Amino acid sequence: MIGIKSIASYVPTAGVDNYAQGAKFEKDEEFILGKIGSAFLPRKDADQETSDLCVQAVNALFANNPGLSRESIDALIVVTQNGDEEGLPHTAAIVQDKLGLPTHVAAFDISLGCSGYVYGIYALKGFMEAAGLKNGLLVTADPYSKIVDPEDRNTTMLFGDAATATWMAEGANWQLGKSKFGTDGSGAPHLKVSDGVFFMNGRQVFNFALLKVPAHLHELLNESSLQASDIDAFCIHQGSAAIVDAVARRFEGEPEKFIKDMVETGNTVSSSIPLLLEKHVLDADWKRVAISGFGVGLSWGSAILYRD
Amino acid sequence: MIGIKSIASYVPTAGVDNYAQGAKFEKDEEFILGKIGSAFLPRKDADQETSDLCVQAVNALFANNPGLSRESIDALIVVTQNGDEEGLPHTAAIVQDKLGLPTHVAAFDISLGCSGYVYGIYALKGFMEAAGLKNGLLVTADPYSKIVDPEDRNTTMLFGDAATATWMAEGANWQLGKSKFGTDGSGAPHLKVSDGVFFMNGRQVFNFALLKVPAHLHELLNESSLQASDIDAFCIHQGSAAIVDAVARRFEGEPEKFIKDMVETGNTVSSSIPLLLEKHVLDADWKRVAISGFGVGLSWGSAILYRD
Repeated sequence: MIGIKSIASYVPTAGVDNYAQGAKFEKDEEFILGKIGSAFLPRKDADQETSDLCVQAVNALFANNPGLSRESIDALIVVTQNGDEEGLPHTAAIVQDKLGLPTHVAAFDISLGCSGYVYGIYALKGFMEAAGLKNGLLVTADPYSKIVDPEDRNTTMLFGDAATATWMAEGANWQLGKSKFGTDGSGAPHLKVSDGVFFMNGRQVFNFALLKVPAHLHELLNESSLQASDIDAFCIHQGSAAIVDAVARRFEGEPEKFIKDMVETGNTVSSSIPLLLEKHVLDADWKRVAISGFGVGLSWGSAILYRD
Repeated sequence: MIGIKSIASYVPTAGVDNYAQGAKFEKDEEFILGKIGSAFLPRKDADQETSDLCVQAVNALFANNPGLSRESIDALIVVTQNGDEEGLPHTAAIVQDKLGLPTHVAAFDISLGCSGYVYGIYALKGFMEAAGLKNGLLVTADPYSKIVDPEDRNTTMLFGDAATATWMAEGANWQLGKSKFGTDGSGAPHLKVSDGVFFMNGRQVFNFALLKVPAHLHELLNESSLQASDIDAFCIHQGSAAIVDAVARRFEGEPEKFIKDMVETGNTVSSSIPLLLEKHVLDADWKRVAISGFGVGLSWGSAILYRD
């Protein structure tokens, strides 16, 4: 069974002081830390492309796993909605070249936002198993600094740039358990780009997440014959501190199991869940972790990861 | 095993007379039919979005398969690099809504061009098997009329708009056999969009295809312990009549097995292979068909489909 072998990441060191940004919009530190959740928002350099963030994350993965050779990589998926080019070519092809990966790599992009990692691990595992491939990389990189208007108080305090790389192969400690997905395109207008600028109806998105995510996680647990008490940690998309707290409160007795770690990263879109897994889960002694991503589409996905 | 149950398509009835277009560029009928391969290039209406083409193809699929209910669909992938919106949201979410599919659908876009169908069937099958899903739709729709400059003689005589929908599920007549993929991002500049306009270095792309595709198909056959004579038909991407003919000539004794059918459609990007399969393969008595897609990325993929 193909599972998650290793995760690495790249978070730019440059960025925005969110307290200073909050002050500009008359938001105090309590709001920035308590509601938004992020004191600092990493930002890529102006001359860094999405593919460059991907390359940094994958190079960190190679550095952490000296036994993994470039030549052995045969699958590469990049999850992004802010790739290098205008629609075509796909960013994964550019990453293949910049990384010097072999040309026998099967590479494509998946277009999803904040739910993208949950879909992505099942898409990569499934594609590799269907095609008989051995070593796959799932890369997330969706730098919203490309599209967020710094004058838009609804979005500019939320998002941080980052990229992650997940190595999937046989013999992994962490396996993919039951999953559950959903899509409601009637909510597409709540999160979209027009004329190059990102728009979010924050109230609608918050309500959607609070209505959908706890129920979806509860259904996934029920269908898995698990209780919340059987889960060691919940790693949900770090949309904002407010949404993570609100979802956590819907899990009676277990809210402290919801990991919240976005003070130095912001909402990193499809990178938020793998950042949590890298930092808090992969080396922990936990047996079972639930993940849930939700956002643009509207789209959501939840899954159980378990130690083999 | 999840395989291909049914394929349907939508080809706009409106379009461009390619002989007239050729005359504008001082190209005669022999060139248009013999080299380009298409007398007519279908064009979507100006007010039709990519998602509308998808909806037409899926509705044709539902009409052909009265036993397939909308409520039973649980996976939807749209292969496109010319979706409705600017990067986000993904077109598959919009298609979910326009089709009235249930919100329990797992939906995402795959960004690939002319190789997209080969990758897409393995991605959908694999994702469904990894996530335990039952009825998936793979939709291709990449209307190049959005990006092709009608004054660019290198591209405007080549591309046609179309969409296809493939139903994948258990109990299918056609199964996915061995596959083989490749990516060379160093060739990305040969096919790309800049400032909204498509650019293609036709000579480079032709050379790439002629160098890569026959060798790739031969390798796939060797690795499958098959000869070209074991294949009933070759359905390769209909990039142009010239490239299909040139690839076919590299298969000694079997060139007539290469299906060429693009007179009324043009190069429909990721829809070209499923259009061939729908029209020539699914209801045939053949046992084994080879497919190969190649293009933007650069990206290529080849596979054996076999009757169960």
